[in-house]
Amino acid sequence: MSAPAIERLTQIIARLPGLGPRSARRIVLRLLSDREHRLVPLIAALKDAAEQVRACSTCFTLDTSDPCTICADASREPMICVVESVADLWALERAGIYRGRYHVLGGLLSPITGRGPETLRIAPLLARLDDRVREIILALPSTVEGQASAHYLMDRLKTTGIRVTQLAQGVPVGGAIEILDDGTLALALAARRDA
Amino acid sequence: MSAPAIERLTQIIARLPGLGPRSARRIVLRLLSDREHRLVPLIAALKDAAEQVRACSTCFTLDTSDPCTICADASREPMICVVESVADLWALERAGIYRGRYHVLGGLLSPITGRGPETLRIAPLLARLDDRVREIILALPSTVEGQASAHYLMDRLKTTGIRVTQLAQGVPVGGAIEILDDGTLALALAARRDA
Repeated sequence: MSAPAIERLTQIIARLPGLGPRSARRIVLRLLSDREHRLVPLIAALKDAAEQVRACSTCFTLDTSDPCTICADASREPMICVVESVADLWALERAGIYRGRYHVLGGLLSPITGRGPETLRIAPLLARLDDRVREIILALPSTVEGQASAHYLMDRLKTTGIRVTQLAQGVPVGGAIEILDDGTLALALAARRDA
Repeated sequence: MSAPAIERLTQIIARLPGLGPRSARRIVLRLLSDREHRLVPLIAALKDAAEQVRACSTCFTLDTSDPCTICADASREPMICVVESVADLWALERAGIYRGRYHVLGGLLSPITGRGPETLRIAPLLARLDDRVREIILALPSTVEGQASAHYLMDRLKTTGIRVTQLAQGVPVGGAIEILDDGTLALALAARRDA
């Protein structure tokens, strides 16, 4: 329909998460209609990211230095928060409520898709544990796969003698009771506290 | 929070239409987690588009050739469909129901923002009219600005003697009556036809 250069760009953008053909066309038109302020800076930023960003060889987050800024920060507390993905690490950092280090698993165990422990970064996690690590926090999603992964990790970490904790489960802040699923309601009720 | 190279890329992507900080972060992570199949092809496609795509100097659509493929196509019928944007041109081409040429106005008259006729591509439209053009179809949005622009163009085109038409207004295909706005209902009723 339109020029191959436009079609190819639209197809690549349409495959990005949350986008489709219609939103990709809007984005392509916006980029082409404002080259100087949108298209050229985007190309430069993508090239910079492609050249500079690497996975930290300790915790596997994405950064321009290795070890990453967090692993290199001596003021971080001696605890490791295990997350599924860099997105989850970013969410915790944005919240600004945690001052320890991280370990990005790179996925979750999945009996359905047959994803096993060897596909996750479990060996590098065990390898970085020493007697300075005071606690390992499992911040994995509250899903079947997340909890299966958490149980597997708890089992593997038992012999280290390090304290292993999990995020609390319950009613989310701002969450209405009537729209909560039964599982969350049951957990929140069972873990109720004195007011 | 994360590396400057990641932050800058996220900010640029977040400003694209339909996106925001959250969706931009997801896109950046996807790009960085699959460089070979996503990041590298995207950079190449953006560079190709930046280098190859130009506005047609006749109709102002975006293409890699000038005159564009449509203007250069001798089999197109001798009529010009005036559209607001390249996005609207693409929508008509996708529908595959029109075989004439186009003219991209590049905007609409807006008494509110003070956008006047001199900011639109009206002079180039008048300049390309000759006695081979059989009809000018105004395919402008059914909004205050679209209809103001259509009336202005009808006035300017009156002296050419060329037939000027507008898209029909009424109930959209698949559109439920109960959710239609009053304006559309009134138009559809006034323009009713024998069944």
